[in-house]
Amino acid sequence: MADLTLADNDLLKRAFLRIQQDVDVRFDAFLPIPSDSRARLVEAMRYATIGGGKRVRPLLTVATAALFNVSRDAAVRAGCAVEAIHAYSLIHDDLPCMDDDTLRHGKPTVHLAFDEATAVLAGDSLHALAFEVLSMPETSGDPFVRAEMVAALAEASGFSGMAGGQMMDIAAEGADFDLHTITRLQQLKTGALLGAAVELGAILGRLPDESRGNLRNYARDIGLAFQITDDLLDVEGDEDAAGKALRKDDKAGKATFVSLMGADDARRQVGALIDQAIGHLAIYGSEADLLRALARFIQNRDR
Amino acid sequence: MADLTLADNDLLKRAFLRIQQDVDVRFDAFLPIPSDSRARLVEAMRYATIGGGKRVRPLLTVATAALFNVSRDAAVRAGCAVEAIHAYSLIHDDLPCMDDDTLRHGKPTVHLAFDEATAVLAGDSLHALAFEVLSMPETSGDPFVRAEMVAALAEASGFSGMAGGQMMDIAAEGADFDLHTITRLQQLKTGALLGAAVELGAILGRLPDESRGNLRNYARDIGLAFQITDDLLDVEGDEDAAGKALRKDDKAGKATFVSLMGADDARRQVGALIDQAIGHLAIYGSEADLLRALARFIQNRDR
Repeated sequence: MADLTLADNDLLKRAFLRIQQDVDVRFDAFLPIPSDSRARLVEAMRYATIGGGKRVRPLLTVATAALFNVSRDAAVRAGCAVEAIHAYSLIHDDLPCMDDDTLRHGKPTVHLAFDEATAVLAGDSLHALAFEVLSMPETSGDPFVRAEMVAALAEASGFSGMAGGQMMDIAAEGADFDLHTITRLQQLKTGALLGAAVELGAILGRLPDESRGNLRNYARDIGLAFQITDDLLDVEGDEDAAGKALRKDDKAGKATFVSLMGADDARRQVGALIDQAIGHLAIYGSEADLLRALARFIQNRDR
Repeated sequence: MADLTLADNDLLKRAFLRIQQDVDVRFDAFLPIPSDSRARLVEAMRYATIGGGKRVRPLLTVATAALFNVSRDAAVRAGCAVEAIHAYSLIHDDLPCMDDDTLRHGKPTVHLAFDEATAVLAGDSLHALAFEVLSMPETSGDPFVRAEMVAALAEASGFSGMAGGQMMDIAAEGADFDLHTITRLQQLKTGALLGAAVELGAILGRLPDESRGNLRNYARDIGLAFQITDDLLDVEGDEDAAGKALRKDDKAGKATFVSLMGADDARRQVGALIDQAIGHLAIYGSEADLLRALARFIQNRDR
């Protein structure tokens, strides 16, 4: 099993601190508060994006782009676009008509801190912001790169990706889904956006489509591992550390990796996926150490 | 006053019929029903996009693109992206936590025909679809055109455009907005997307940014006229013809163009705006007749 070494820990700690600061600074700049009644909307968008979340997705974009010597500024901006999609999806998923959650990143969810209408609009506006950021010449001077990033993120976000997975997740309540269907569901719900985070880094790095296989396989494996650890944390985790409600799947009678495989096999499966993910990086040298450490972090995460 | 002539009527009737068919065919192709539990989501997306709506926005894109000999197929695809944004915004605006509407295009609203969670996700998925369509090489072979269209539509859709206007509209309830604030609100809520419909046509036509002033002024004037006629129809219109609930602004105590100016002055203002909009097209010849007829249609519309 791939444990986190001291070197990994140090690398990750610095990388997370730096991306968290960078992402906060960017959203602060993207979201100036207007001097009219849209102020409340933009405050809700800031509440959902600044100062919360681990920033796994922007870090994936930045760590992938770094393989190809992309400017950090461009990679952070693209990572913020992925994070904006992630943040919008959390706002909408937390709504009373969806998961009806009250806590997110240790704070009241947006519809409680503001109201439901503002939450719907804040999610919608972050969705649009993601594509606005990707299409700016400041993010890439090459329009082909901009258009390709938009295509990848839009596909990951819509009915053939994240939103489709969320729909399947709703249908999973009380349904008798098997492991194959759960895997497919999670590949869409969580995996598509993690995959897009890596893909945007590769696009910024001008890696040709046909050379992205290893990185896509890496993203697919850590994405699935990420979701299995999420299921494990839902069963075994600490609500304070997670900053959100846990034990929800069991209450909703949803099949999960853990309910279908058992906790021990699920943990073994995570180990195998992480080893496999790291194997896909074999063609890269030490420049991929952060991606390797990120994979091991996912295996060992406690929130 | 610019009445609709028989020639206008004929031109518009054919143009609307054709664009309605074209848009339906495209959405049917964009939205194949998957053979898993996402089927319900895609059915809701189809319900909201196929066979309903006047298609004013796609027609604006197609009519503008036609000034510059853009292929109709490309223009229809771009117009569908604008229509997808329009459709998503209607789904979310109709939600119980927003306007709580029961009728749209003469049918039950999406959250009633399906359920609230599906409505939120269908809106989100149409939002993503818009950018997916714009970023496809099939829509334009030129990545610069694709990226520029995404930038224009994302800005028109987010907090600095439509969603921002919707937020101001919510704040308008019970507030004492003056004519200046109402104008600004409506420029964002309705005008931004109508403007984007024209802008996308100009971008496809490779009209340089600095040459788009006339078309932008045309769009701004018909956008404002569109909203004033909307307010007039809300007061004077027929619910069956409109296919949606009317008399809502008055019930909600919202200031509108009609409540602030009176119906007669509002009608005069529409006439002046339409004349002005048509004036901005003076540099174009008969190739702009459809845009002129569309302006007069907005002035004379009964739904």
